[in-house]
Amino acid sequence: MLDTRFLDALASAAPTPGGGGAAALMGATGAALVAMVCHLSLGKKGHEADEPELRRLLDEAEALRAKLQRMVAEDACAFERLMSAYRLPKATAEEQAYRGAAIQNGLRAATLAPLACARAAADAVRLARRAAALGHRQVISDVGVAALAAAAALRSAALNVQINVPALKDRAFADHALTEVAALVDECGGVAEAVHGRVKSMLA
Amino acid sequence: MLDTRFLDALASAAPTPGGGGAAALMGATGAALVAMVCHLSLGKKGHEADEPELRRLLDEAEALRAKLQRMVAEDACAFERLMSAYRLPKATAEEQAYRGAAIQNGLRAATLAPLACARAAADAVRLARRAAALGHRQVISDVGVAALAAAAALRSAALNVQINVPALKDRAFADHALTEVAALVDECGGVAEAVHGRVKSMLA
Repeated sequence: MLDTRFLDALASAAPTPGGGGAAALMGATGAALVAMVCHLSLGKKGHEADEPELRRLLDEAEALRAKLQRMVAEDACAFERLMSAYRLPKATAEEQAYRGAAIQNGLRAATLAPLACARAAADAVRLARRAAALGHRQVISDVGVAALAAAAALRSAALNVQINVPALKDRAFADHALTEVAALVDECGGVAEAVHGRVKSMLA
Repeated sequence: MLDTRFLDALASAAPTPGGGGAAALMGATGAALVAMVCHLSLGKKGHEADEPELRRLLDEAEALRAKLQRMVAEDACAFERLMSAYRLPKATAEEQAYRGAAIQNGLRAATLAPLACARAAADAVRLARRAAALGHRQVISDVGVAALAAAAALRSAALNVQINVPALKDRAFADHALTEVAALVDECGGVAEAVHGRVKSMLA
């Protein structure tokens, strides 16, 4: 049922896919579970009035899942571009200047990729919060797993922003990226814990 | 690169795979990243003395990943068995007794599956802690992602234990499962946060 080729590649000695791709995968997992919760709540007794909102949530969750799935490849591309820049020749001053600029461009791309993933993972947390209010009781543990997966994706993407930022020379861009990701972790990390707490209390 | 069939099935209206399978997938993702960190630290300058321990850690991570990957299917099987029990006829007293016993057996299996997943995810957290002490600085963010993925897997598996336990008539078994999973979340949730904090401080 589970195709393990992605996990085989993740576990291998190849540097991509790595933690950035794993973050996107966890975000996509969270979005997928929100979609499942919508499917399994639609048409259930007591959820008739929520049907329009459940359908909207389902569409948003599926669009977000598609976006996060694409980010698995985008993160690998950005990282490979950065690695290629580090491998450029550096014998002459001209080569050094060209290589230096390529590395800075690569670092910027390798920061923007997990930053975009952090934004999408934060969106997945917000969808999980809506699912917690709408989802059928029978699938409420799946809402909790969605929130946990999305929050782990967000915090993982944040680490992938943080590892690239120190080498960036554009400090304004670097600071902006760090500030944005910290705000997302603060806000949506808390939302995910609240959803998890609510789910746990419904199971007790 | 990412085969999306598992996520397609997770997002679908089919009740399996669900949150239990997602938990196992996140655990396998954490174990895969520990393996990658070992691969990318082996042979690196300054890590010569750690080579035997890195090889041991790699072997354990790969064995644990294989186990967690199998749990994706095992969780679905246990859940489907429980669903089949609920669909049994219940017209006569004899049918009701047979169905009741089948449901209790199904609930037990559907509790044991995420309990086993929680134990394996806790092991993945412990491997991430060892990777944090041994891993090369360049892949330290991947250690952090491994810890976050494994902890999300553990807390997700715990929710899947908790949702099945209330309907169990064997209260001794139910209490034992809840106590064990709470102890694992307490211990290894804290370990994962410590690993994450250490990784974050190394990136700052």
